[in-house]
Amino acid sequence: MSIDLSYRPEVVELIARTELFIAEHVLPVENEFHGDVAAAGGDDLRRDLNAKAKAAGVFAPHAPVEFGGLGLTMSERAPVFEAAGASTFGPVALHIGAPDEGNVHMLAHVADERQRHEYLAPLAAGDVRSAFAMTEPSPGAGADPNALNTTATKVDGGWKINGRKRFITGADGAGFFIIMARTSGQPGDRGGATMFLAPAETEGISVDRHIHTTDKSMIGGHCEMTFADVFVSDEDVLGAVDEGYRYAQVRLGPARMTHVMRWMGSAVRAHKVALGYVEQRQGFGGRLGDLGMIQQLVADNEIDLAAARALLVRACWELDQGSHASDATSIAKTFGAEAFSRVADRSIQMCGGLGVSEDLPLVRIANELRPFRIYDGPSEVHRWAIAKRAVGRVRKERQE
Amino acid sequence: MSIDLSYRPEVVELIARTELFIAEHVLPVENEFHGDVAAAGGDDLRRDLNAKAKAAGVFAPHAPVEFGGLGLTMSERAPVFEAAGASTFGPVALHIGAPDEGNVHMLAHVADERQRHEYLAPLAAGDVRSAFAMTEPSPGAGADPNALNTTATKVDGGWKINGRKRFITGADGAGFFIIMARTSGQPGDRGGATMFLAPAETEGISVDRHIHTTDKSMIGGHCEMTFADVFVSDEDVLGAVDEGYRYAQVRLGPARMTHVMRWMGSAVRAHKVALGYVEQRQGFGGRLGDLGMIQQLVADNEIDLAAARALLVRACWELDQGSHASDATSIAKTFGAEAFSRVADRSIQMCGGLGVSEDLPLVRIANELRPFRIYDGPSEVHRWAIAKRAVGRVRKERQE
Amino acid sequence: MSIDLSYRPEVVELIARTELFIAEHVLPVENEFHGDVAAAGGDDLRRDLNAKAKAAGVFAPHAPVEFGGLGLTMSERAPVFEAAGASTFGPVALHIGAPDEGNVHMLAHVADERQRHEYLAPLAAGDVRSAFAMTEPSPGAGADPNALNTTATKVDGGWKINGRKRFITGADGAGFFIIMARTSGQPGDRGGATMFLAPAETEGISVDRHIHTTDKSMIGGHCEMTFADVFVSDEDVLGAVDEGYRYAQVRLGPARMTHVMRWMGSAVRAHKVALGYVEQRQGFGGRLGDLGMIQQLVADNEIDLAAARALLVRACWELDQGSHASDATSIAKTFGAEAFSRVADRSIQMCGGLGVSEDLPLVRIANELRPFRIYDGPSEVHRWAIAKRAVGRVRKERQE
Amino acid sequence: MSIDLSYRPEVVELIARTELFIAEHVLPVENEFHGDVAAAGGDDLRRDLNAKAKAAGVFAPHAPVEFGGLGLTMSERAPVFEAAGASTFGPVALHIGAPDEGNVHMLAHVADERQRHEYLAPLAAGDVRSAFAMTEPSPGAGADPNALNTTATKVDGGWKINGRKRFITGADGAGFFIIMARTSGQPGDRGGATMFLAPAETEGISVDRHIHTTDKSMIGGHCEMTFADVFVSDEDVLGAVDEGYRYAQVRLGPARMTHVMRWMGSAVRAHKVALGYVEQRQGFGGRLGDLGMIQQLVADNEIDLAAARALLVRACWELDQGSHASDATSIAKTFGAEAFSRVADRSIQMCGGLGVSEDLPLVRIANELRPFRIYDGPSEVHRWAIAKRAVGRVRKERQE
Repeated sequence: MSIDLSYRPEVVELIARTELFIAEHVLPVENEFHGDVAAAGGDDLRRDLNAKAKAAGVFAPHAPVEFGGLGLTMSERAPVFEAAGASTFGPVALHIGAPDEGNVHMLAHVADERQRHEYLAPLAAGDVRSAFAMTEPSPGAGADPNALNTTATKVDGGWKINGRKRFITGADGAGFFIIMARTSGQPGDRGGATMFLAPAETEGISVDRHIHTTDKSMIGGHCEMTFADVFVSDEDVLGAVDEGYRYAQVRLGPARMTHVMRWMGSAVRAHKVALGYVEQRQGFGGRLGDLGMIQQLVADNEIDLAAARALLVRACWELDQGSHASDATSIAKTFGAEAFSRVADRSIQMCGGLGVSEDLPLVRIANELRPFRIYDGPSEVHRWAIAKRAVGRVRKERQE
Repeated sequence: MSIDLSYRPEVVELIARTELFIAEHVLPVENEFHGDVAAAGGDDLRRDLNAKAKAAGVFAPHAPVEFGGLGLTMSERAPVFEAAGASTFGPVALHIGAPDEGNVHMLAHVADERQRHEYLAPLAAGDVRSAFAMTEPSPGAGADPNALNTTATKVDGGWKINGRKRFITGADGAGFFIIMARTSGQPGDRGGATMFLAPAETEGISVDRHIHTTDKSMIGGHCEMTFADVFVSDEDVLGAVDEGYRYAQVRLGPARMTHVMRWMGSAVRAHKVALGYVEQRQGFGGRLGDLGMIQQLVADNEIDLAAARALLVRACWELDQGSHASDATSIAKTFGAEAFSRVADRSIQMCGGLGVSEDLPLVRIANELRPFRIYDGPSEVHRWAIAKRAVGRVRKERQE
Repeated sequence: MSIDLSYRPEVVELIARTELFIAEHVLPVENEFHGDVAAAGGDDLRRDLNAKAKAAGVFAPHAPVEFGGLGLTMSERAPVFEAAGASTFGPVALHIGAPDEGNVHMLAHVADERQRHEYLAPLAAGDVRSAFAMTEPSPGAGADPNALNTTATKVDGGWKINGRKRFITGADGAGFFIIMARTSGQPGDRGGATMFLAPAETEGISVDRHIHTTDKSMIGGHCEMTFADVFVSDEDVLGAVDEGYRYAQVRLGPARMTHVMRWMGSAVRAHKVALGYVEQRQGFGGRLGDLGMIQQLVADNEIDLAAARALLVRACWELDQGSHASDATSIAKTFGAEAFSRVADRSIQMCGGLGVSEDLPLVRIANELRPFRIYDGPSEVHRWAIAKRAVGRVRKERQE
Repeated sequence: MSIDLSYRPEVVELIARTELFIAEHVLPVENEFHGDVAAAGGDDLRRDLNAKAKAAGVFAPHAPVEFGGLGLTMSERAPVFEAAGASTFGPVALHIGAPDEGNVHMLAHVADERQRHEYLAPLAAGDVRSAFAMTEPSPGAGADPNALNTTATKVDGGWKINGRKRFITGADGAGFFIIMARTSGQPGDRGGATMFLAPAETEGISVDRHIHTTDKSMIGGHCEMTFADVFVSDEDVLGAVDEGYRYAQVRLGPARMTHVMRWMGSAVRAHKVALGYVEQRQGFGGRLGDLGMIQQLVADNEIDLAAARALLVRACWELDQGSHASDATSIAKTFGAEAFSRVADRSIQMCGGLGVSEDLPLVRIANELRPFRIYDGPSEVHRWAIAKRAVGRVRKERQE
């Protein structure tokens, strides 16, 4: 018991192996297709890269050992996922991308024996993909989950689900859905939500359209969906009825952090591309990299990346201790998402005209990173939660 | 003589007419083609919109009256170009986009009678497009114009031009080029540059490729070009030999400001889209637009836009007084370009997931605006120039 | 009617005269007493500097001509007050400091003939000082004026005022007070306030203590006061009963702008001190002023000052047109106050260890400027008001 | 070997004891004297508080065990010093303030047996204070140590030192000095510096004046000094001749981090004062602490503090591993110093008018924190060093 920031040799070795794998097998494809995973083959590409990742011993390092993973702790995932994030296709290749990675995590915590066998095992193995159907179009659950509008009504032997969902990542092509629906209370209430498991082919489930966003690396896109009288049997209720928000918490803290890990890798890559450029490009009587204003951009990138990484280490360690780590994950997510956008933007600026061109991968990295300030809770919502807790602590102390 | 910030009634009326024209004829096309001017038809679209603009009495308001324009001062162009900028296709429609608008401005100042007839008249009328071939690949003239590498060698009856150019906006399809080439001195020297006029079909001129950048609204793209033994006769020298940098200054100050005007229009549009969203979208117990953190984003947009506009007014007035307005235009350009990116980014943030999607035009506006912190001199170069002059003034005072 | 940013020759000349006067008569005293106006003599100093200002023809340039002033418009005050603000004692010297300057402005608009003779005339002449008693300790009127708690109860021939006030600038030594008190409604209501005039020696008025703040240039300090059964006759009601908030608006817009003008002068001075330092100080192989990171600080100061000045010009022109200019003054105030703090902070940074020392005036300028982000409405309140109006405009358009 | 962010129980207990000690014995004195340690008694106060700290078992926790300290690692100092920093007098009370703390650290590494007995032992015990005489007036060693101007010339049996020093913290009343002087090379050269030990009463040493800065908590002030023909015997050379810069590095990395630790405590205190205020103060229809814009300030404080702490943990751990940790300490110092100023500024803003008054300790905390962006290397110098190393790494990779 005392401060230690080093990793087990196995993890150190896995980081190196991951870096090598990304450089050899993943980056070339990403570059060829300008980071558009659908254009690069979608699920066909995924299966191909997954096979190579298995061969290289880097597949699904976060999955429970019993399901063929390496069982890394959150703390250990951080540097490995960052290494994978050096390519925007890296998470797909290692099967550690959203939403599957978070779903594996949550199912491992909540699913019963049968569900583990039926849903978790094939998901962990990469045989199927999954999607987490939670957010809804206005006036439903967007940044504010309590606004949940989709309903599940008790019927004989199960539930009937009705509602519309929006921004369902990976929906197109998913093998099954985890559906969040209201089983009690009214939109606006805390509580009253339940999670349901449903194979994609279940009657009444339809993927209506893709919402085209600036990020292009997630297989299955971000979709609008309709659930119309979808029947889910009682045995496919995930965990207990009305406990959906609680399980969502189990998922959300770690899911936020793995987002930070992966996108950290992309931000680091942008910074390296820019460093490579300013180290060579001449101008104003010297190398750009020796000019004061460029040095400021370089240094600010280094500072931002170091701070984001340090906050991530803290949050992961708290999660590994069994804490919800609400503050630590909100802080690491908010700072990280904003820092990564700043890093990408400075990297573009350092490269001048080329920076805003497709000749370099910077613009597409910036476009992958931008949504992270919105996905998984906009910065404003996290700040609101952080402040509420801080002021609440003072309030409580005063009342004691 | 005393502070007045009002416009002539004719200008006020022209602003209104321009807004209407953009809304009716331009925005629908832009939206249909997601802001990609090439996909929307390129020069065919341009000719169509130009004809409609002429019919509506809003075509080329900046052009000299003798060439069919309205002869607006810089101060008067500001609100009109801003109105046109509400669509990213607006500048093309009114024929006030880069680089033609700046080329018209410069030719009106520098061209001789024959050149005015041969080059300026058809350009002002929109019969042809033009390009300004100045910037070069490394180690040539990028942000630092003194690094000019392309050479013009005196030959019998004219000059032979050799060199490579990069980021030549509008090159593909241009009717003629204004070429900046070194006629004396070495790369790195101040001075020694000359401007040449050359029809696009001149032997030795080739447009090699498009550099794909985040902005999609400029017809003819941003190109790489080669000039191989291009012969230009003496009568197509623009102005005097070795005076190219001086004329470039004539062009650059106003060109910077018209960039600010047009992009201001886009930034204002982004802000309005976001305002429209937060005024309606519900969440966290009310309308988003009534939440403090959203109000902060709204207010910061309003402040940024007001400050950029106020700096623009100042710079245009100085230009209209016949000043180079080096400080005022550098300041307005630098602040404006950075402010517009902030405005677009905040507007995206206000709209949440939709903000990063193609459902709203915000991402493409942000992508149009981003390069402006690099084009026409990166912010770093302008800051360097501003500081040099400020410190230089102190130095001079001390030496007196 | 068309953009003009020049000043009448009389104003240009007055600016120059003011600069000279400040340099010769005011800065030496300020420097000797490290900017502490009380230590420098308080009202004795004021009377001395006022006499010199009268002799130099720069006294009270804003006051109505009939009261011996020069009757400058708001637009014209801007550069003159800025010149005066080059010393933190300048506003006192020219009798253009808060709160007297704003009180002169308001009395000129609202006072009746007798009140003009009795209160405005001696105030404009600098024979007495005044204070504006509006803000109150919690839970009264702070940033939120509607919380007004002090009451005025109708009695025979006049009113009885009771309440506590806080942050009453210039209270200690003021000749009379303008008291804002509630004559109808409850704390929290809009409306129901009235303004009263009361000589300082009126029974029941007491100045309880000085609140020591970081600014040291305002004579009479910022005080806590008690009004206990203070009788004010009907003829000393300022304007109409229950119209106090409306008159406060008359005062607040211009008062905000003159704050910006004066503090602009201080920020410009800080910037000049820093420029003088970096132009000479050697380090890292050259003059500090030639290093890129220092140039960035210099340029950012220049940009901030130019933007604040441009916004001020806009707001003053709107006020001169008879508009309330609520948006323009809120924007200029908010941007200006924040920009000036940034300028002072960068100036300190440029001067290194000396920057945080009393060897240079930078720290005391920063300390004068800091409260401006709070006085006259904290930035947060202005942003809230700006956003409310912006969202409100959209709402209104939709309802039409 | 794997991530651990917990502390030994002894350290946890020491943190609690330190917090209690500060609250009971130190804060009351600091508040009474508004943070001015000279006004509060200077060395008399120090001796009194040191005695109390010894009694409470919290004295000099960083000192080697053989000298009566607790021998805490850098990692362990972090939370203890932060707890002490909750009062600006805390570091003096625990004898962990600059420059003594860094001098103890360096002497423990470099001093020989005799020097340890003669200088380190009484210093560690708090019997005397010390000063580190390195920085010089222009054109000498300021932010750029290579400019070192003070010379030491070899004479019989020792050295003669001549030069002027500036910003020598703690000089007035110090028992001895560690003097950095040039023993070879020219100003501007790297290397050629040597450290010398000299009792304060040595002939030729004079403390000329105090430089009054915004921070008021360091006993002995920041002074200008003259060394005129000061004789130092060979046995009082500290370490080897010409190795001064190397030893300075030993001192500077940890000294930077203990600065961060102590000032973190002050920033946390400012944040808590503001939280206490906004949790109670009413306005705009509720508690300030429930308003969105205030929540943003609160959350940004929480984020800044968490990030600074996380970077500090990283840097300390690297130092404890025996690394120079040049990047990690520069990053933690630069981010920390800037973050603390932001935190103090936001805390002031949250408290409105009271925030800028002496009624709350916020202004004096801000004034203690401001210089930290300059002391121990201005942010610009650290950014320059960070960028140089980052670009240098790329250069080296390319050359391989």
